[in-house]
Amino acid sequence: MSVLITGVAGFVGSNLAKKFIADGIKVVGLDNLCRGDKKNISELIGHPLFSFHITNLCDLDTYAEIIEQSHVDEVIKEVWHMAANSDIPAGITDANIDLCDTFMTTFNTLELMRRFGIKIISFASSSAVYGDLGDLNIDETTGPLFPISNYGAMKLASEAIISAAVESFLDGAFIFRFPNVIGLPATHGVILDFIRRLNSSKKLLEVLGDGNQQKSYLHVEELVDAMFFIRKNSSKKCNYFNIGPGDDGVTVRFIAEKVRDVVAPNALIVYGKTNKGWVGDVPKFYYSIEKLRNLGWSPTLSSEQAILRAVQEIYEQETGF
Amino acid sequence: MSVLITGVAGFVGSNLAKKFIADGIKVVGLDNLCRGDKKNISELIGHPLFSFHITNLCDLDTYAEIIEQSHVDEVIKEVWHMAANSDIPAGITDANIDLCDTFMTTFNTLELMRRFGIKIISFASSSAVYGDLGDLNIDETTGPLFPISNYGAMKLASEAIISAAVESFLDGAFIFRFPNVIGLPATHGVILDFIRRLNSSKKLLEVLGDGNQQKSYLHVEELVDAMFFIRKNSSKKCNYFNIGPGDDGVTVRFIAEKVRDVVAPNALIVYGKTNKGWVGDVPKFYYSIEKLRNLGWSPTLSSEQAILRAVQEIYEQETGF
Repeated sequence: MSVLITGVAGFVGSNLAKKFIADGIKVVGLDNLCRGDKKNISELIGHPLFSFHITNLCDLDTYAEIIEQSHVDEVIKEVWHMAANSDIPAGITDANIDLCDTFMTTFNTLELMRRFGIKIISFASSSAVYGDLGDLNIDETTGPLFPISNYGAMKLASEAIISAAVESFLDGAFIFRFPNVIGLPATHGVILDFIRRLNSSKKLLEVLGDGNQQKSYLHVEELVDAMFFIRKNSSKKCNYFNIGPGDDGVTVRFIAEKVRDVVAPNALIVYGKTNKGWVGDVPKFYYSIEKLRNLGWSPTLSSEQAILRAVQEIYEQETGF
Repeated sequence: MSVLITGVAGFVGSNLAKKFIADGIKVVGLDNLCRGDKKNISELIGHPLFSFHITNLCDLDTYAEIIEQSHVDEVIKEVWHMAANSDIPAGITDANIDLCDTFMTTFNTLELMRRFGIKIISFASSSAVYGDLGDLNIDETTGPLFPISNYGAMKLASEAIISAAVESFLDGAFIFRFPNVIGLPATHGVILDFIRRLNSSKKLLEVLGDGNQQKSYLHVEELVDAMFFIRKNSSKKCNYFNIGPGDDGVTVRFIAEKVRDVVAPNALIVYGKTNKGWVGDVPKFYYSIEKLRNLGWSPTLSSEQAILRAVQEIYEQETGF
């Protein structure tokens, strides 16, 4: 049997693929290489357990052909659907980006799962489905769900169409609501952004927002570990979990300072005036992982520890040191 | 100024249009006449306050032209977006139906509202966004939201993309979560279905499901009244309300018996064996309207009274008596 991973050349997808292959499981990997990068999976290309296809999941016919071919060789038992837009501000400027890359990828994936009798989906959802709930401690039953970005909206739309599919033809769905995830290979996100900007100007780091936005951060290795744990240990038809470090998180100010300390200790940090980095940015976020703890999984790194580790890792990725 | 009503030839849209025009407000009405019917708005055609366009909202260019033309004549101040698929089982068989008719109609409406600077949307959402929550008493903050039909999923997706638009460019959104709505002009639904089946065979009424499914029903006149009340009296940027009769509802068995009493008193009613009428049907539903009561609106008819009235009305519609 094999698993299909969408967005396999992306940040989370590439880590997942490596883990599956290390466990001896065959992976059919798909990516349009729009935000993903082939170098993220360079060590897998040519591996006997790995086949890679460059394709746009919005092109249903080509997507279907790839699954049909792969399915004949070896039955695809489940799909890990990680493909999505990852540039939230871009998706607010042009709603079509998240429509196509975040939602229609899910819609088409389900359409083909039904067609080819693939019955289990694991899905990269997001804390963004909760919108801006202020000081509320958010667990999986918290409502209302009013996302403030098209990205969050199309992740919620994806959850919704998956849950309808659970009712009509799927055997199981695993919905992982990701927090901010950091680590390697860094393809986007606040740490990479700060490092690149400081690398190009060693004297000044300008930060969007006032630096007081506070969020929790999880290292990608822990994220993958948590997803595998949930996949193995939760056995409802529709399984949905917040995944996170379970702490109150760190401020953007903390991240900016830690990046400065590593990249350019003498640089000046200048903050903006608003409490949001951009339209659609959620300024504060308290994210309960009690449900996941009750299932038996706990993180080993705090948000602070995850940031410190990722700053070092991403600095090395960017500079070769 | 004028208002744009999508799905204007449908069940709710036609009632809305009549109310606006009775109040002296100009209406631009759109419908693809796929499930709506021109006879539902026959009394409005030719009225100086009413302009009607047959168009598919999924065709963005034509939709844009109509708005542009209407907008030049008289500024469209707000949109009442009622267009959607109304055949839930059909949408489960073919997911593209609710993708196009329930979600993409919303997506395109927002896209054009942004383009033409229209800042207020009123939206026909649905209790279907809540999925099957069993015995839970459902209020507007209840979660998780896992719809069990593609219709419910695409209504939730529509809410989500509207809430993201509130964050980025809308001045106000009014999200009405409809219960089962009954009354005239009946275009679909359980009463019409029972009446038509009994009219064609006076001896036997076969009912999908065991008849114990229990839901609340609101008369369309009360629904329209509630929507206007909310539009006038709620003034947040994102306003969302359950609308319903506020009771525990009636069973399918009750409806079947009342229809039989009116249409064919000697007919035999035969029930199915499952507690669902079809995949995606929610068997029981307790729907709180406390938020709406607190705003100052209360229904005048119970579910039972609404059913009794609607059975009579729809029987007259169908038979001319």
